[in-house]
Amino acid sequence: MNSNILNEIIKQNYNSIKNRIEKFLVNEVNQSGSKGVIFGLSGGIDSAVIAALCSNVLKEKSLALIMPDSKVTPEKDTEDGISLAKKLSIEYKIIDINSIHSEFSKFLEHDSFALGNLKARIRASILYYYATVNKYLVLGTSDKSEFLIGYFTKYGDGAADLEPIISLYKTQLREFAKILDVPSDVILKKSSPQLWANHTAEGELGISYEEIDSVLYCLIDKGVSLQETVKATQLGEKSVNKVYDLYKKSEHKRVLPKAC
Amino acid sequence: MNSNILNEIIKQNYNSIKNRIEKFLVNEVNQSGSKGVIFGLSGGIDSAVIAALCSNVLKEKSLALIMPDSKVTPEKDTEDGISLAKKLSIEYKIIDINSIHSEFSKFLEHDSFALGNLKARIRASILYYYATVNKYLVLGTSDKSEFLIGYFTKYGDGAADLEPIISLYKTQLREFAKILDVPSDVILKKSSPQLWANHTAEGELGISYEEIDSVLYCLIDKGVSLQETVKATQLGEKSVNKVYDLYKKSEHKRVLPKAC
Repeated sequence: MNSNILNEIIKQNYNSIKNRIEKFLVNEVNQSGSKGVIFGLSGGIDSAVIAALCSNVLKEKSLALIMPDSKVTPEKDTEDGISLAKKLSIEYKIIDINSIHSEFSKFLEHDSFALGNLKARIRASILYYYATVNKYLVLGTSDKSEFLIGYFTKYGDGAADLEPIISLYKTQLREFAKILDVPSDVILKKSSPQLWANHTAEGELGISYEEIDSVLYCLIDKGVSLQETVKATQLGEKSVNKVYDLYKKSEHKRVLPKAC
Repeated sequence: MNSNILNEIIKQNYNSIKNRIEKFLVNEVNQSGSKGVIFGLSGGIDSAVIAALCSNVLKEKSLALIMPDSKVTPEKDTEDGISLAKKLSIEYKIIDINSIHSEFSKFLEHDSFALGNLKARIRASILYYYATVNKYLVLGTSDKSEFLIGYFTKYGDGAADLEPIISLYKTQLREFAKILDVPSDVILKKSSPQLWANHTAEGELGISYEEIDSVLYCLIDKGVSLQETVKATQLGEKSVNKVYDLYKKSEHKRVLPKAC
């Protein structure tokens, strides 16, 4: 793998990015006439970054929902969410979705993958519930890597009013998180949607975020061909095609429903 | 009210519309590599029209989910859904969402409006569950009137892969349904999302679909000013402003999440 590309991706002015996102959050709340923002806090890096940004500019107007599935979510994740919310002095609620998920599953044929996606949709439903009650905007926690390869549940974690960090690749977020004082164990934790036991993103995808980001950066940001991306990244045709396939197949997740 | 405008809206070649939507459905299933389509069948006119169209061109590849909340949904609606699916010979399943909704509500502060929206999101979660299991596309059942005034639940009944009838106003759908042989009691039934007991659309909105469609047609299709719309529709400033306000305030429901 060509590390020059990764260095190019990572080399950003993170203070200016921080200012831009914080302004965006404040402006959107004001312009929409909303009273604040709500988001899911999973104990992972993406939502930790969101929490830190909100704490900087919307501390009294933020609600973090920690929504473990108590039978699957590692306790460490829930603890990390709680201690982060406490450290940042933002309001939080803990809602265990296990019994809701079980109640759904009584009516559904068993399918492990679909049951995983269902959890993301249950969480979205709860976020929007409290968003309605409080007149808050729902913040998505998708990053650019996940968004472009479609590594999110349509109308689940993809359901949001605002997407504050969707222009940042996962490898950029890991740097960005440092200037936001996100605890290093959260930054270093393996990314995981935790839709089933021992679920990790890179395990499921079979490719690292360093590789994914390098390919996406060449294909999308630089707009170069597949062949040139293979040459530039030195990652081999198989990996490059894999990322490209994920990107193409997930197009329907990044657009509005198709109208006739 | 100026009935000439309504006549202009309603006067359409519904056979050509039928052909266009049916082609759209078949093409989208083929091009996406999906195995069929799934949709919620409520017993109302919108989903009845969808069911009839699917029965014409995707009969063996359609699944209708009838998802009453047994404590709120009128029995007549469920019966209408079942008898329509039987008459059209399309596969259907009945899933009572009452216990799922109750399980959610144990964890939520009581809010009648938010509890109503939650039902639409539970239904969307179940539709997407079976869509994933069967590799089916989810069909939305929104019409143009509801879509433009935002009379749908964001990420609830607004969650779909395709929107086959979103270019037809409610008053047009009532005509369209006739050539599709939708039973007349379904066509004449008062429109209702049935999110709470005795819930009717026109009751909640305080204005009829004939009025809504006349205003939207002037404002959106013809692009004329508010003042000219008042003059043309003869509906009075209050009604015209009401529809315009609904349209403007719901803009966020018709766009993708706002990215920073």
